[in-house]
Amino acid sequence: MRDEFEFIHHIKEKYALTKVGDDCAVLPYDGESDMLITSDMLAEDIDFRLDWTTPELLGHKALAVSLSDIAAMGGEPKWAMLSIGVPEDLWHGDFLDRFYDGWQRLAGEYGVELVGGDVSRVAEKLVIDSTVLGKVAQGKAILRSGAKEGDGIFITGSLGGAAAGLRILEAGRNSAADSGAANRLITRQLAPNPRLDVAALIARCEGVTAMIDISDGLSSDLRHICEASGCGAEIDPAKLPIDADIAVLQTSPDDQFDLALNGGEDFELLFTADPKLFSAPSDAAITPLGTITASVGSIELIRDGQRRPMPPRGYRHFS
Amino acid sequence: MRDEFEFIHHIKEKYALTKVGDDCAVLPYDGESDMLITSDMLAEDIDFRLDWTTPELLGHKALAVSLSDIAAMGGEPKWAMLSIGVPEDLWHGDFLDRFYDGWQRLAGEYGVELVGGDVSRVAEKLVIDSTVLGKVAQGKAILRSGAKEGDGIFITGSLGGAAAGLRILEAGRNSAADSGAANRLITRQLAPNPRLDVAALIARCEGVTAMIDISDGLSSDLRHICEASGCGAEIDPAKLPIDADIAVLQTSPDDQFDLALNGGEDFELLFTADPKLFSAPSDAAITPLGTITASVGSIELIRDGQRRPMPPRGYRHFS
Repeated sequence: MRDEFEFIHHIKEKYALTKVGDDCAVLPYDGESDMLITSDMLAEDIDFRLDWTTPELLGHKALAVSLSDIAAMGGEPKWAMLSIGVPEDLWHGDFLDRFYDGWQRLAGEYGVELVGGDVSRVAEKLVIDSTVLGKVAQGKAILRSGAKEGDGIFITGSLGGAAAGLRILEAGRNSAADSGAANRLITRQLAPNPRLDVAALIARCEGVTAMIDISDGLSSDLRHICEASGCGAEIDPAKLPIDADIAVLQTSPDDQFDLALNGGEDFELLFTADPKLFSAPSDAAITPLGTITASVGSIELIRDGQRRPMPPRGYRHFS
Repeated sequence: MRDEFEFIHHIKEKYALTKVGDDCAVLPYDGESDMLITSDMLAEDIDFRLDWTTPELLGHKALAVSLSDIAAMGGEPKWAMLSIGVPEDLWHGDFLDRFYDGWQRLAGEYGVELVGGDVSRVAEKLVIDSTVLGKVAQGKAILRSGAKEGDGIFITGSLGGAAAGLRILEAGRNSAADSGAANRLITRQLAPNPRLDVAALIARCEGVTAMIDISDGLSSDLRHICEASGCGAEIDPAKLPIDADIAVLQTSPDDQFDLALNGGEDFELLFTADPKLFSAPSDAAITPLGTITASVGSIELIRDGQRRPMPPRGYRHFS
């Protein structure tokens, strides 16, 4: 059966939708700027569990995932819409006030203004749809589709932490020692921070050709860039910046590697850049991972001269 | 306990949100136009039932409710985002294709382009969040807050049909004779048409001071105008344009009146206008209902010289 990426591709083709398929849609704005818009739906017991998080952290995350999409286009967030479907039992109590407090705290950090949305009742499970609008200099949005043969592939920060945090939550918080590392991993899962600051640094660099945020997992998100750009990629797995805190899981190197490659929700930025033009900003944690190739659809890991395919094993809702 | 209108008012005050609270938010755009944006969430078994509708009609309605908000500001819809949370069983089959077909057919009528959204899995019940962006001439959005003492109160079309259609569906379709009237009422409930054409006529008239669409019910929606404008209203109940098809229900005049006054979801336009400046366009079905007064918060029905209060009995999700 088709997954959601195939379904979106199908709808895009069927109705000739030219603005669908990147982290944000790019709309004409005022002649100096383009407008960016993105929506993300979070559903209870699919994308979050109320017994693992707090209302404040959930409010934070609902906004953070959309801010990350604005970051991935090199844009600046401005306005937000927030729709929330609330079951009866959550209506009575302080859940919603605390949720909006968490949302508003993150919004305040980035000067994002809540301009609308909807408050509705749902039969059973909480659902949130977050829409953020942003701006980017006209024609300067960094799309998924600009990668070219020979471009370097880069990642910000570290990978696998959010998935490791999820694993701790799934096993019960007590499964990990109550350590700083375990708490940091859980925070990466429950309260991710959008990489707007480093995105602004990257967007100012010469030669950046494509960008996406790590929401589904590096293996899937790199494939999104390659599909949109009509190219392939080679990755050096030894270079993957695995989150050092994952050591607290006391798991095998292969498992750590799997978390970093396929885990998702790290909300780091994966981008490509022309090596003749690009030099990484010195004050940002940016790691080169490999090279874009002309082999359409071929994404490979190269270790000790050995090549093996890198299938997209990131998160998907349907399969 | 608070209802959702009180909650939204609370959030608006707490965080000093100046753009929240009308049918759409009005955002700066290109110096000639303002941008309008609105979101509406529809939840299974709260806002619709899958056994009463078809996927195509549901897609139509999901867009129509947001187009109606653009109409209520006197704007023109341009772009849309569509987020849908789909339970596993609906993923496998033709539901989504048929839903997008219905959505797209209505979008095509008004030149609305789908630019993004999200497709997510939900644990149990289908949920849809529809966002529409539109444009209006700069400074010309028709707000809820402009009504003034002495303004006339007007309504487009007829009222009560959508609520009557819902009643037929609730009783089982066979409860009503399989007549043209019954089918038209059901269609008003399942596939409402946004009043964009008549809204454009109204927006071109001199002296229009406030507008809202009838989503919750006339008694509630008139109160929204009065609260936003700091005024009161007097309505002549004899003038209420009750949908003639309601006769098929063979119900009492009082019940028909109640459907028209409190039923909701007719998606007609309720507006106010300065009688010295406004003359209704001759080619539109527009009925005068009464007058705006200076008595803040007092909304009254006046029949045969008798006054009685008109409490807001329209739909609310929480109470």
